[in-house]
Amino acid sequence: MKFGVLGTGVVGQTLATKLVQLGHEVMMGSRSAANEKARAWVAKAGAKGRAGTFGAAAKFGEVVVSCTEGKVALEALRTVDRRDLAGKVVIDVSNPLDGSRGGVPVLSVCNHDSLGESIQREFPDARVVKALNTCNCDVMVDPSRLKGDHDLFVCGNDAKAKEQVTALLRDFGWKSIHDLGDITNARGTEQLLPLWMRLYGLFQSPDFNFRIVRKG
Amino acid sequence: MKFGVLGTGVVGQTLATKLVQLGHEVMMGSRSAANEKARAWVAKAGAKGRAGTFGAAAKFGEVVVSCTEGKVALEALRTVDRRDLAGKVVIDVSNPLDGSRGGVPVLSVCNHDSLGESIQREFPDARVVKALNTCNCDVMVDPSRLKGDHDLFVCGNDAKAKEQVTALLRDFGWKSIHDLGDITNARGTEQLLPLWMRLYGLFQSPDFNFRIVRKG
Repeated sequence: MKFGVLGTGVVGQTLATKLVQLGHEVMMGSRSAANEKARAWVAKAGAKGRAGTFGAAAKFGEVVVSCTEGKVALEALRTVDRRDLAGKVVIDVSNPLDGSRGGVPVLSVCNHDSLGESIQREFPDARVVKALNTCNCDVMVDPSRLKGDHDLFVCGNDAKAKEQVTALLRDFGWKSIHDLGDITNARGTEQLLPLWMRLYGLFQSPDFNFRIVRKG
Repeated sequence: MKFGVLGTGVVGQTLATKLVQLGHEVMMGSRSAANEKARAWVAKAGAKGRAGTFGAAAKFGEVVVSCTEGKVALEALRTVDRRDLAGKVVIDVSNPLDGSRGGVPVLSVCNHDSLGESIQREFPDARVVKALNTCNCDVMVDPSRLKGDHDLFVCGNDAKAKEQVTALLRDFGWKSIHDLGDITNARGTEQLLPLWMRLYGLFQSPDFNFRIVRKG
């Protein structure tokens, strides 16, 4: 399958590499087609990797993965011809983190709204699925690096889109994936970040995730 | 030890009963000394249980447990003579949930502030420890009812107060307790509630908790 991965940071690179490893074709999108990080990634990724603008990557992908920094996620998507998002699954991986005040980052949107909802609202013809935003990117693409089972969440308005994303996540190695419902539930998973960041500080490592424990 | 438990709801009743079972003396506090739920609880609790106003319970307790509904927690504490909180450990169990708009409750304070911080700010001489707010009250007092290990969080500005609360939590049966740092970290644990409530809706049961899974 063809993926457009928007974002050249560590999350974008890690996801793009995993998708190529799984046999998919990936165009990594960035603000400029000449982005050096994207070009360096292509050089390593081989024949199935390429680079372009956000717009070119979105056009290329049958599925679009939005994994720029949360604060610029909408801005990046706005540079795309919205017809190139219409009908497509858009996996929203980003969190709306704002570290501008120093200390533990806060959320730039939360509680009554979320980044996932913001994207779906602005691109109503896209089939937005919020996923993978509750763990570090190394865990995203290799859940077995942690000891024991742990959980992931998806939400979105389109049931078939969620099924498709869930199948991809199973290819990544995820076993326990909870469908929380429509895209408003992105408020729940994005608001996990304030605790996630504190645990990151406590452990001095991003190598952890949450497991939901229930009655026996 | 003597505990003042502020709140007659299911959380207050469950915690008060557990404390009595552990051999502590408990006064359950409510707006009115004649509160019927508190009186019914006393009738069941036996010689170690009693009831009174919020003020009387706070005066009685060597440790005060604030477990009224989050939206009235500050209001309840304001009825207490603040000298009766000075120097005491105040365990803040409540979450600032606001269900007034229908749907999944939102938080009445979050992101840049928290209920835990609000209480500490308003009662600077109290030694506030945020704890137990991330799970259902049946799980709070009996973590073994869930299958396998799972985690709890404490935070607060006073290290000795956190040690004392952690020891009490161990008496409740908790094994894995993370000290997140000062009271501002209540933002992290309170903001877990939007996800908790969605999982509660999904499972149709409050019998679950989070386990932090790390590298082997």
